[in-house]
Amino acid sequence: MSTFGSLFRVTTYGESHCASVGAIIDGCPPGLELTAADIQVQLSRRRPGQSNLTTPRDEKDLVHVQSGIEHDVTLGTPIGLLVKNEDQRPKDYSETDLYPRPSHADYTYLEKYGVKASSGGGRSSARETIGRVAAGAIAEKYLKQVYGIEIVAFVSSVGKIHLPSNVAPPSMTPDGDEDNDDVEDALSPEFRHLLATITREEVDKEITRCPHPETAERMTKRIIRAKEAQDSIGGTVTCVIRNVPSGLGEPVFDKFEAKLAHAMLSIPATKAFEIGSGFKGTEVPGSKHNDSFVLKNGKLGTTTNWSGGIQGGITNGEDIYFRLGFKSPATISQAQNTAQYDGTPGTLAARGRHDPCVVPRAVPIVETMAAIVVMDQLLIQNSRRTAASLLPPITTLPPTMVMPKH
Amino acid sequence: MSTFGSLFRVTTYGESHCASVGAIIDGCPPGLELTAADIQVQLSRRRPGQSNLTTPRDEKDLVHVQSGIEHDVTLGTPIGLLVKNEDQRPKDYSETDLYPRPSHADYTYLEKYGVKASSGGGRSSARETIGRVAAGAIAEKYLKQVYGIEIVAFVSSVGKIHLPSNVAPPSMTPDGDEDNDDVEDALSPEFRHLLATITREEVDKEITRCPHPETAERMTKRIIRAKEAQDSIGGTVTCVIRNVPSGLGEPVFDKFEAKLAHAMLSIPATKAFEIGSGFKGTEVPGSKHNDSFVLKNGKLGTTTNWSGGIQGGITNGEDIYFRLGFKSPATISQAQNTAQYDGTPGTLAARGRHDPCVVPRAVPIVETMAAIVVMDQLLIQNSRRTAASLLPPITTLPPTMVMPKH
Amino acid sequence: MSTFGSLFRVTTYGESHCASVGAIIDGCPPGLELTAADIQVQLSRRRPGQSNLTTPRDEKDLVHVQSGIEHDVTLGTPIGLLVKNEDQRPKDYSETDLYPRPSHADYTYLEKYGVKASSGGGRSSARETIGRVAAGAIAEKYLKQVYGIEIVAFVSSVGKIHLPSNVAPPSMTPDGDEDNDDVEDALSPEFRHLLATITREEVDKEITRCPHPETAERMTKRIIRAKEAQDSIGGTVTCVIRNVPSGLGEPVFDKFEAKLAHAMLSIPATKAFEIGSGFKGTEVPGSKHNDSFVLKNGKLGTTTNWSGGIQGGITNGEDIYFRLGFKSPATISQAQNTAQYDGTPGTLAARGRHDPCVVPRAVPIVETMAAIVVMDQLLIQNSRRTAASLLPPITTLPPTMVMPKH
Amino acid sequence: MSTFGSLFRVTTYGESHCASVGAIIDGCPPGLELTAADIQVQLSRRRPGQSNLTTPRDEKDLVHVQSGIEHDVTLGTPIGLLVKNEDQRPKDYSETDLYPRPSHADYTYLEKYGVKASSGGGRSSARETIGRVAAGAIAEKYLKQVYGIEIVAFVSSVGKIHLPSNVAPPSMTPDGDEDNDDVEDALSPEFRHLLATITREEVDKEITRCPHPETAERMTKRIIRAKEAQDSIGGTVTCVIRNVPSGLGEPVFDKFEAKLAHAMLSIPATKAFEIGSGFKGTEVPGSKHNDSFVLKNGKLGTTTNWSGGIQGGITNGEDIYFRLGFKSPATISQAQNTAQYDGTPGTLAARGRHDPCVVPRAVPIVETMAAIVVMDQLLIQNSRRTAASLLPPITTLPPTMVMPKH
Repeated sequence: MSTFGSLFRVTTYGESHCASVGAIIDGCPPGLELTAADIQVQLSRRRPGQSNLTTPRDEKDLVHVQSGIEHDVTLGTPIGLLVKNEDQRPKDYSETDLYPRPSHADYTYLEKYGVKASSGGGRSSARETIGRVAAGAIAEKYLKQVYGIEIVAFVSSVGKIHLPSNVAPPSMTPDGDEDNDDVEDALSPEFRHLLATITREEVDKEITRCPHPETAERMTKRIIRAKEAQDSIGGTVTCVIRNVPSGLGEPVFDKFEAKLAHAMLSIPATKAFEIGSGFKGTEVPGSKHNDSFVLKNGKLGTTTNWSGGIQGGITNGEDIYFRLGFKSPATISQAQNTAQYDGTPGTLAARGRHDPCVVPRAVPIVETMAAIVVMDQLLIQNSRRTAASLLPPITTLPPTMVMPKH
Repeated sequence: MSTFGSLFRVTTYGESHCASVGAIIDGCPPGLELTAADIQVQLSRRRPGQSNLTTPRDEKDLVHVQSGIEHDVTLGTPIGLLVKNEDQRPKDYSETDLYPRPSHADYTYLEKYGVKASSGGGRSSARETIGRVAAGAIAEKYLKQVYGIEIVAFVSSVGKIHLPSNVAPPSMTPDGDEDNDDVEDALSPEFRHLLATITREEVDKEITRCPHPETAERMTKRIIRAKEAQDSIGGTVTCVIRNVPSGLGEPVFDKFEAKLAHAMLSIPATKAFEIGSGFKGTEVPGSKHNDSFVLKNGKLGTTTNWSGGIQGGITNGEDIYFRLGFKSPATISQAQNTAQYDGTPGTLAARGRHDPCVVPRAVPIVETMAAIVVMDQLLIQNSRRTAASLLPPITTLPPTMVMPKH
Repeated sequence: MSTFGSLFRVTTYGESHCASVGAIIDGCPPGLELTAADIQVQLSRRRPGQSNLTTPRDEKDLVHVQSGIEHDVTLGTPIGLLVKNEDQRPKDYSETDLYPRPSHADYTYLEKYGVKASSGGGRSSARETIGRVAAGAIAEKYLKQVYGIEIVAFVSSVGKIHLPSNVAPPSMTPDGDEDNDDVEDALSPEFRHLLATITREEVDKEITRCPHPETAERMTKRIIRAKEAQDSIGGTVTCVIRNVPSGLGEPVFDKFEAKLAHAMLSIPATKAFEIGSGFKGTEVPGSKHNDSFVLKNGKLGTTTNWSGGIQGGITNGEDIYFRLGFKSPATISQAQNTAQYDGTPGTLAARGRHDPCVVPRAVPIVETMAAIVVMDQLLIQNSRRTAASLLPPITTLPPTMVMPKH
Repeated sequence: MSTFGSLFRVTTYGESHCASVGAIIDGCPPGLELTAADIQVQLSRRRPGQSNLTTPRDEKDLVHVQSGIEHDVTLGTPIGLLVKNEDQRPKDYSETDLYPRPSHADYTYLEKYGVKASSGGGRSSARETIGRVAAGAIAEKYLKQVYGIEIVAFVSSVGKIHLPSNVAPPSMTPDGDEDNDDVEDALSPEFRHLLATITREEVDKEITRCPHPETAERMTKRIIRAKEAQDSIGGTVTCVIRNVPSGLGEPVFDKFEAKLAHAMLSIPATKAFEIGSGFKGTEVPGSKHNDSFVLKNGKLGTTTNWSGGIQGGITNGEDIYFRLGFKSPATISQAQNTAQYDGTPGTLAARGRHDPCVVPRAVPIVETMAAIVVMDQLLIQNSRRTAASLLPPITTLPPTMVMPKH
């Protein structure tokens, strides 16, 4: 349904042509300094019309905070917020309404609800993501301030244009000989450096949000080619989360990566998710793939990071990184042979202007959904840690079975 | 935590060395004929010791139903069940306890709980999956009987040994020229045929559970090579779900694929998930990737199925298929340079015998978790459909906005 | 937290001095004809300033629907709605801020959150109930239209002024001799008649909303006496729910009465709840208290109704009735000896004008919360019933163990 | 359904005639010393056959811990536990199966599920409570050890035999003159002393578990009278929870008393709940009913405690007390005129021996359910408090709006 999270809980509403889209964020820690501007930053990065690669509509997307904050401080009560829709009337009926758009949600929404919004796919619109982005921006503020947690996403491929293999996540690198177990250092030093240092400022330097200028330029051309062909193209987004404390994730069903995958695949147009070594890691023998332990600043860390910061569903303190695949947008102006709702064959060409590629705008959506997952898991683990810390030391277990109180 | 699902709800318990592992299944429809044998089938397919490719322990894994069934009929009340552990005592302390196993959950469980089970990774053990498999077997029985839903998983790769491209899911096929938008018919006819017809019997003919004998043989050799090298190897499992009604999935956060990904990435050792065209689909332009509609048996269907049976987070009635990546098992007998809990560098070689490759045994786990997701979404959608069907017909919306009552 | 319900799910936000209060209603059946006016009815009944017995502020409390409805038909997607606050600025600091109001939430909100809203008790304000009332009004519309369910609440006592015993719910009638098991016909014929026939129109004829004119007049005087004394007075509300299908309620933890009590005691100022015979029923021997079965219109019903329409946590088709106790409002203008936050003793007299008695305005709040509970339980049970109805008939159980398919 | 709680989460299973009844307790803090004996204490207090006032069956009710504990220390993973049923076969069919027992759950279970267990009311059996009592006993251990929280319940009435008014909770005291606002000191000094000092040892001295010997004796006679008449009688249980920290409870829907009422009314045979002054408090003017603040040991407390330790849905640190009404048991041996499932009128006399009064055995059930509620709310609030404590001090709010960090 439209609620996500247990202790940090986000509920959203809104279609394309209703009065507004919005969210209620329940469980935000009280005492956090927070203004609308903190939230607006990510909404503006998500907004269409930022470049000629995205939809030209210039929606303002200004957030209006309704509750939960006084004198720029969170009260701990639910934060209601909304962003007005520019066009608040149900769309007029048109001939294209006879056709469910191929690979869009027109047909399935009708199958599910028996009624559909005038905009067709109802809540499957990208506009729905506004509520989550706003919620995640709040989580980010807390995580950054208290834990120094940094979440940075960037575009790692558009169509067949991929980051060069030395800076690409594992799955994007070529496979090599099937009888040869030798693998390069799993994550190239360049890629690990990228994960460790990349900032949103660097990402935003390129309109495609790919932080490798040469590749970014090729991506731009690819998107323009799609646009000129009245076509669309997909891509992937890679995201790193730095400085997450160890111990987050709730086995067995709410493992960290399971909740993360849930969050990511709830973003419109996503089809694939991998964490750490991902699909590529399935080809690497355990003896190479295992991340050996080593002392780092007085705490155990790992020498490599195939695991992507998660072991057994629980964070281990290393960088968390994952990759998310977005399909090519379904709405294209090119004529398509398809059928009407009643089965009559025909040709459909979508009217209006559409995003030929969503991945640049998806970057803040990925970051903010990641923030919501980290925040929720952190609050749950904090509860356990606090509860356990109040108990007397355990004396009946062997020393390696118990972590010293600290 | 250890509960999954909303109306069909599974809660599990159990580590490797406790008295038993088990589950409570709440929300099973009343009036379903069900015996322990129905559940045992999938437990036995999951059991180790089925071939010399898996761990040689011969656990019996017999399920004991505790409640919720009388005279072989479900009562609608919670079904309690358990499977006894053969070795019910906490493990003795040993020198290997000084070391957290690399890429295993020993370290993260200790970081999370401050205490760890004698078996090390606690609930990260494969043994934990018994409860879910039993629960899913119950869901499968209902889904098959009432809807004819068939769920079949199979091994699609072991290490670098992949199914041949003509029968492989999209992501496993080679990419081709980056300036060339031409793609073959997305899913080869052979692969679509495989999805449409594959049965568990065919899958089980091969001990690797890869339904392509020639590839299966190469996989077997690959696993034996890993075993002989005291090493391990990963792989992928592909799964198809047939005959699922349209309309399942709960936007926006509980889209069908989001819940499915959540379920799948909660299975131990998983690192990657893709549905339909997956990562490969991100490279295909919308004009090729869109699944055009066509009348099939009086109902809309699609000519291609890049979408994998889901559009806008909702099932469309076509086959649902997805692929799941399992990393190489972390526990290997080969000596590894690593560090003790206190940071002291040293060498660890796991004792005992370990599964060199988990994907053959993962097949029933994937199927049963898929069944749980379908079942839960089905119950939710049934509720909505029933509620809506009792309302009078809508006369105020344009005809294409409303599905006729039926 | 601020979400209630599983399939029909309400999430609310808002304090007294923020921009608006509102709610998101998720899971409303699609295809329901619904306008703002349907919702406004109960909001207007809840509004202050309806008579000189309640607070004189004339808030408009107009609902603004944001989403989920097009052309006056629900889409099945979340319905966002809000009601603007008249005074949207945080209150100015005043001397009374040094004092936590006795028996109000000022102190506990500060203890809980470490921060408190300028209005003091934050979400404990009666204004918070707007979101729930709006949500419940939607549920009522559906329940009435599809099932003919009628929910009517009325004031059954103000202070010591009670309904006369012949029309009062059981607990309000005198106890009698402790050695005498003889009880009158549990529910007097007059009270059963009242339950069976009372309408909102009749209730609203009296400004106290007590449908017994003579008692209503005495209540009015009692409230005026409290007002003149700068004091306040409590009371009870009795509510009946008619035409609820049998089978609702989810044992064991979500029994119908358990969810109902949860909902009712989440209403501000409530201290007591009883269903059916309530506390009084504890004094009546089983032989008198048991409701015997009898055939009614071809279906089993009961001759008496001590159970209040619920047995074993599940509705039995008879009228559901319950009584809810509201304490005297904490905010009074009369000077009170108390202490400041820092413990300094002093005297506090609340400024402004306050409701001397909340029960008349509580009537629509009780009704709408009841509607939310019925709606949610109905959707869950519909799911089960639909799922079970698709199974073949059971032939292996004795006939009395199985209900015939219908 | 059969799960209760969010962070401390209990799921139960089991009918009367299945193999066992049991529970999974998820979210128990790790590192708690815990043995089966800790759990057994409350199970044994709950067990039938403790005196000739209760059912004579001598069930052993020994708990078998399945998981989550090693070397007598909790691991933080789910604790599975079960208690075997003595009679594990479905009951034979008998003539009484033609009759739904009046006011029992036979009829409603059949209406709900379409199938019923051979024992009739399925999970409505008192035996179902075993799982919760075991779960609550674990919570109690933690709460006592870490916070010194004490939970003591006792019988406050049987039929019309009530505790004398000076030691009775407010609602049980007589009403007095309706025109007279004067009330005695709300809670008598004797009752407040009882709340502050009562222990389980004192309660268990009397077989009726009423800690007032003279009243207890009269209660015993009343129960024997019911038994001899092949009848049954109800009663009330009062419970106090001491030393609960301030700040627990999650407005607006999960207020402390709302969750408590939910938990309590999920116990079989309950019909009424009141907290603090309860129904009686509705008759007391605000000026008398308000609990004034006063400094106690350096922290704010209240002079009176009409509120029962809760204000605005949040605990204030004072004693929490509440009263719960249990109806007379429905199963009686006396012949009753009623109807069969098919409507045929007839006479039913239950066979076997039945509990003439459940309140003495209900005492540990009330205590343990209360413990579960406190535990869950404590874990949630701990999470918030920890999260807020890590933020920098707030400097932008007036001092009375902020609690100093500590």
